[in-house]
Amino acid sequence: MPDVVFSVDQAKSMRDQVVPGHNRWHPDIPPAATVRPGSSIRIECREWTDSQIGNNDSANDVRDVELDGCHMLSGPIAIEGAEPGDLLVVDILDLGPVPQEIGDAPGQGWGYTGIFATGNGGGFLTEEYPDAYKAIWDFSGQKATSRHIPGVSYTGITHPGLFGTAPSPELLAKWNERERALIATDPDRVPPLALPPLEALVLGGTASGDVLAGIARDGARTVPPRENGGNHDIKNFTRGSRVFYPVHHPGALFSGGDLHFSQGDGEITFCGAIEMGGFIDFHVDLIKGGMETYGVTTNPILMPGNVEPRYSEFVTFIGISVDHETNTNRYNDATLAYKNACLNAVEYLKKFGYSGPQAYLLLGSAPIEGRVSGVVDIPNACCSLYLPTAIFDFDITPSAAGPVRADRGACAVSS
Amino acid sequence: MPDVVFSVDQAKSMRDQVVPGHNRWHPDIPPAATVRPGSSIRIECREWTDSQIGNNDSANDVRDVELDGCHMLSGPIAIEGAEPGDLLVVDILDLGPVPQEIGDAPGQGWGYTGIFATGNGGGFLTEEYPDAYKAIWDFSGQKATSRHIPGVSYTGITHPGLFGTAPSPELLAKWNERERALIATDPDRVPPLALPPLEALVLGGTASGDVLAGIARDGARTVPPRENGGNHDIKNFTRGSRVFYPVHHPGALFSGGDLHFSQGDGEITFCGAIEMGGFIDFHVDLIKGGMETYGVTTNPILMPGNVEPRYSEFVTFIGISVDHETNTNRYNDATLAYKNACLNAVEYLKKFGYSGPQAYLLLGSAPIEGRVSGVVDIPNACCSLYLPTAIFDFDITPSAAGPVRADRGACAVSS
Amino acid sequence: MPDVVFSVDQAKSMRDQVVPGHNRWHPDIPPAATVRPGSSIRIECREWTDSQIGNNDSANDVRDVELDGCHMLSGPIAIEGAEPGDLLVVDILDLGPVPQEIGDAPGQGWGYTGIFATGNGGGFLTEEYPDAYKAIWDFSGQKATSRHIPGVSYTGITHPGLFGTAPSPELLAKWNERERALIATDPDRVPPLALPPLEALVLGGTASGDVLAGIARDGARTVPPRENGGNHDIKNFTRGSRVFYPVHHPGALFSGGDLHFSQGDGEITFCGAIEMGGFIDFHVDLIKGGMETYGVTTNPILMPGNVEPRYSEFVTFIGISVDHETNTNRYNDATLAYKNACLNAVEYLKKFGYSGPQAYLLLGSAPIEGRVSGVVDIPNACCSLYLPTAIFDFDITPSAAGPVRADRGACAVSS
Amino acid sequence: MPDVVFSVDQAKSMRDQVVPGHNRWHPDIPPAATVRPGSSIRIECREWTDSQIGNNDSANDVRDVELDGCHMLSGPIAIEGAEPGDLLVVDILDLGPVPQEIGDAPGQGWGYTGIFATGNGGGFLTEEYPDAYKAIWDFSGQKATSRHIPGVSYTGITHPGLFGTAPSPELLAKWNERERALIATDPDRVPPLALPPLEALVLGGTASGDVLAGIARDGARTVPPRENGGNHDIKNFTRGSRVFYPVHHPGALFSGGDLHFSQGDGEITFCGAIEMGGFIDFHVDLIKGGMETYGVTTNPILMPGNVEPRYSEFVTFIGISVDHETNTNRYNDATLAYKNACLNAVEYLKKFGYSGPQAYLLLGSAPIEGRVSGVVDIPNACCSLYLPTAIFDFDITPSAAGPVRADRGACAVSS
Repeated sequence: MPDVVFSVDQAKSMRDQVVPGHNRWHPDIPPAATVRPGSSIRIECREWTDSQIGNNDSANDVRDVELDGCHMLSGPIAIEGAEPGDLLVVDILDLGPVPQEIGDAPGQGWGYTGIFATGNGGGFLTEEYPDAYKAIWDFSGQKATSRHIPGVSYTGITHPGLFGTAPSPELLAKWNERERALIATDPDRVPPLALPPLEALVLGGTASGDVLAGIARDGARTVPPRENGGNHDIKNFTRGSRVFYPVHHPGALFSGGDLHFSQGDGEITFCGAIEMGGFIDFHVDLIKGGMETYGVTTNPILMPGNVEPRYSEFVTFIGISVDHETNTNRYNDATLAYKNACLNAVEYLKKFGYSGPQAYLLLGSAPIEGRVSGVVDIPNACCSLYLPTAIFDFDITPSAAGPVRADRGACAVSS
Repeated sequence: MPDVVFSVDQAKSMRDQVVPGHNRWHPDIPPAATVRPGSSIRIECREWTDSQIGNNDSANDVRDVELDGCHMLSGPIAIEGAEPGDLLVVDILDLGPVPQEIGDAPGQGWGYTGIFATGNGGGFLTEEYPDAYKAIWDFSGQKATSRHIPGVSYTGITHPGLFGTAPSPELLAKWNERERALIATDPDRVPPLALPPLEALVLGGTASGDVLAGIARDGARTVPPRENGGNHDIKNFTRGSRVFYPVHHPGALFSGGDLHFSQGDGEITFCGAIEMGGFIDFHVDLIKGGMETYGVTTNPILMPGNVEPRYSEFVTFIGISVDHETNTNRYNDATLAYKNACLNAVEYLKKFGYSGPQAYLLLGSAPIEGRVSGVVDIPNACCSLYLPTAIFDFDITPSAAGPVRADRGACAVSS
Repeated sequence: MPDVVFSVDQAKSMRDQVVPGHNRWHPDIPPAATVRPGSSIRIECREWTDSQIGNNDSANDVRDVELDGCHMLSGPIAIEGAEPGDLLVVDILDLGPVPQEIGDAPGQGWGYTGIFATGNGGGFLTEEYPDAYKAIWDFSGQKATSRHIPGVSYTGITHPGLFGTAPSPELLAKWNERERALIATDPDRVPPLALPPLEALVLGGTASGDVLAGIARDGARTVPPRENGGNHDIKNFTRGSRVFYPVHHPGALFSGGDLHFSQGDGEITFCGAIEMGGFIDFHVDLIKGGMETYGVTTNPILMPGNVEPRYSEFVTFIGISVDHETNTNRYNDATLAYKNACLNAVEYLKKFGYSGPQAYLLLGSAPIEGRVSGVVDIPNACCSLYLPTAIFDFDITPSAAGPVRADRGACAVSS
Repeated sequence: MPDVVFSVDQAKSMRDQVVPGHNRWHPDIPPAATVRPGSSIRIECREWTDSQIGNNDSANDVRDVELDGCHMLSGPIAIEGAEPGDLLVVDILDLGPVPQEIGDAPGQGWGYTGIFATGNGGGFLTEEYPDAYKAIWDFSGQKATSRHIPGVSYTGITHPGLFGTAPSPELLAKWNERERALIATDPDRVPPLALPPLEALVLGGTASGDVLAGIARDGARTVPPRENGGNHDIKNFTRGSRVFYPVHHPGALFSGGDLHFSQGDGEITFCGAIEMGGFIDFHVDLIKGGMETYGVTTNPILMPGNVEPRYSEFVTFIGISVDHETNTNRYNDATLAYKNACLNAVEYLKKFGYSGPQAYLLLGSAPIEGRVSGVVDIPNACCSLYLPTAIFDFDITPSAAGPVRADRGACAVSS
């Protein structure tokens, strides 16, 4: 087992750890540890909300979740000799949930998928599903099942949702500038267009005083992916993957968390993966000057691992960039096209007895593939959603006999 | 071999066939043949431009291509007993290029990939690559190689770009209404936001007189995918796939063409697949009332075949919805995110010696996967592009040793 | 399409072709054609028995098949410049059945699987199944179904059963010596231990007179695989494969046939593949001196193609080298272990309603994988048989609910 | 984490554990624990030799290993209500090596592959490689590399080599009868044909006195797989697999161990896997009367998991049942055919600079596939060995350029 360079007591908040983590991106957050290139390291992680969500049958905790203090990240880890322009080469050696006997936080034998209410961030289908819902998933080895969505079991494509390097002060300033400009186009929108820096609930590792005040004032929120990596939510950061992160600030300052037991492409319920705390093991190395050498400037590149679960049969749903309700065309809008593919999948699953929220939760957490199929056939972008049939314990394929409609129970709702 | 219900002489234009095809969607195009559910049929297809592009080293033909008469489709085939509300179940039994001895049109031992000039439709990266380029691909069994892009060979994921059923008059009216409304928002845009009905170069099968005039006046252009299927450009419509098309008009009136030897997700150069004429064999059947039974109303659903080429190692590029040139954020824009992933891949390939247009042509035609990775992490949508390493005959992976830069020749350019 | 260097009229016997093929291995069989390294060529093939088997519901033709004249091979094709010690590099570009309108021989829309009677060669389970049986398979694109084995459909792993180079006189002498020595250990065995040269029904291409007499006297029978390649019956010689054959005689003299639409590992019913006539396209090249360079002396090596059908769920049967009937142990006998795995699979399938012969025919032709699992755990070799569940249209997996037993019809039997 | 029902202190011999395991199969070995159907359990395992092999550069420990006390198994675990005729349904939830900080036994960050000397059991190629050799493998997440075999790294197909249920007294008597009969055919053979019961070094769990004496007298050795499962050494018993074991004795009495980090089909060096201690998690259940219901009488059946590492390119070696040294034919002998395929692969690898023992060790431990390709083409059985090219960090494919021969170091040898 690699050395634990960031440890977490899962019975305590991230704020109360011996070395606390952080919930903003800022170059001044002090390193929690420093390691040499060539090292193998373990980082322990809290579930991204710092365990606000419980293993129960009410979605009230999802409805009322406090997001100003999220995501709770572990780190930063400084890498000796890392300089701006380098590529930080990270091999994902292993990752998994917390051994369950430690307590009852997510990751300790279970995880959850949530649909956030529109007033609290919402999700990809928030216009259709504005309220809060939740599904609890039980882990059995690599498989997850849910009392809230019976009839399916998945082999987890376990991965971290969020890891990245620290921005330089200049890069951070660019982020704040462009995101504030976007917000200014519609400052009262619900959900908001973007999240500006926020002093409330800031956590800056071991920083205090003026340094912490600077982090609170300028630190970038953790929700979006950016030039440092960040909240990719790419389900293919699996065991065996190698990621090449741009280094923007001396020491690289590598941080992250937001571990997922499983997730579908798009993570469509926002809190759509099966969320958990746990651990992740990395091997770290550097390619000196690699950003220029390989032309990797705006985003990491990745070589995914070769142990994803195999599926060989799919029902595939298609969406195009038309608002069918209003018969309005949007120009080559892949986001709308994928939204329609998701809505088409939800309608299909409802024919088998699932409720809309159940189907939505299922598509967020199951190993579905979302494809950008056509983005040149104007005016209609075309996206597709591949649903593996083997995750169902009944026949989900279309036939002349019609769907097997059954009582599929109910997910957790808010009161 | 199934019965040929639509035959094509590849030495002649689609306009000069015994039973010509069509280049607009309209319910009044007369069926070229009528078949019973349960039939296996062969449809022969012209390359989508009706063979305007030659096997040579100049992209002038791509630059000057006449698009008003495209796509050239084979059909319609009427299915006995098909009524609105049914699902037309289509098994793709086989498809392939034309036996090469017949002549020299695309599909006869070769195909091409083109980048259209901005003034002629452009492609996904038309701002970065506004001029016309071309690559010729030679077929050797299932593999394609190109003298214009040395160093790669692909096993083709052969598929039809465009098949669909006829719209009802009401559905056609909805299309025209919404697309005209979109065009009206910026009627002088180059390239245009959408293509309205156009009388020039219309072909309506065996229709003539008033019927043809109606097709010319109202017939929907063939470029976008819509509720009838249409120009999906989904590379996974491979041999062994089963597609469930909505039936909107009596007889279903199934038509298509635009065969592709290979294509990457997104078909990013617009004419991005390896384009060819050829044949396609279908088995056709009906699920009576299937649209309501399965909730399939706005788009077909699909079960892809199980014989796609296997690849197990990829370099993956990531893009987010930021215009990095201007440091402008766009809200959850998956189209921009995928565009950035494509641009990142192009920059990477340039480090190995390819020109930008070569890399762009390669990404349009190679079996890349485009994924909608995250569409909830506001404001940044995140898409990813999976480039299989095995298609290169040199090592394309990043390493401390740096890329193997070599002379990679040149693609066809316009004069 | 490559040049046809060996053509076959499927309405005629191989003996009556303009240039006939051959049914023995001998260096003196005259080349039917000569090609240069770097050529792409098409070879047309008769079904291996020269079409003795009909598309009907009686196995009498299988029972009475004349095997002295089998296999009917196309060739030899001489490769310019090929010398002993070279490796002949053969890319399998394409292969498939005959277009069906030509006639009614196997490969023209259908194929067959046969169980040979013990007196006529038998099969792998000939002690358990001594009589003749047959199943007819209908081809629909890449899929096969059988009226004799309802409930299954396969995507064909289409491949040639038998291709190889000519032996040198010295190599041929070694074969005859060792096979005659084996036969001498039990000359009256039924079925025989091996098949010696046989004058009856010999066909030596265009050879006649003394040359033909020499071929008849010494020519090796075509049943076994040997140092020249030969009757490998390896199902993974699929489209896209590259094979490196040892060259033993000047010109290489490449011949073959015995095309299979599908086959399971082991080809356990002997005539266990779905047998057909058809065509195969090759690209041929040489690695001069490659036998020594790569240490390839006794058998070809192979790089399989990457388009095999994907399956992701299997029921796996295990066998060990024990004769369970008599409670006798055999030492590390992988043949017996695989036989037991096959018998275990047959017993399992019988619980779902198939007859023993149906199950046996199914396992010969379906894309099962046969694995040498353990060959060191004395005294028991251990082999395993992977049966893909997706080929069944009912649930073939074990569960507490028990198997779905149904009427599964009957295969063709002999009268 | 499931309840630990059999725990091991890796710093101590199996003999010195609080509840010791066993090294013979016998129905009278007392259960170490009893669990209910539906339970999830963890079993901790010693490496199969009880840690006789060290992480060093000498193969003397392999040469001198004491095998009379092997394999060291954990268990038995009794399952409540299990009766003869039932199927014990075992889901492999998870398995892995020991966390490395505990000590330095195999499984604690490293494992080994050994070639046993002929006088000590030998391996599959013991005639060609009669001496002892060893390779140490270092684990990094799911990957293994070896200082003794540079140039390769594997993703482990981690699995248990040996699990099974207890024989009934009658079944045990059958085993002893048939194995003694085999030994009697050549009692002085080196290595022996089989291993009879042996009193020396017997370990029978908590049994003592007369019970232990009976176990010592009649207990079956653990080397071969038999009707109870046992030492299958099937590499596909991976995470996510479901195994259906026959129950022969009340309580099922489930035991096992011999965990492997990786192994090739055949486990050809005998100690050919990467051997380690560690843990394995199971979910256990029963199908009452399942042996008759599914016809599962002589061996377990299995549904393999869906997370094996994907490989898409292979070099495949072929072997036939001929002794090429002596030009002797053996009749349809798949064991010899696979041996020849192995020898062909060894010769090939030597051309790249590996020594014979290195190549042999590599083929035992790497994820090679061994296929029973043809077992009906008399007299020659045909087997094939698929070597994935991606495990090499250099180009292992054949080409006109010839192999990249380099200094590949050396494996551990005996003095």
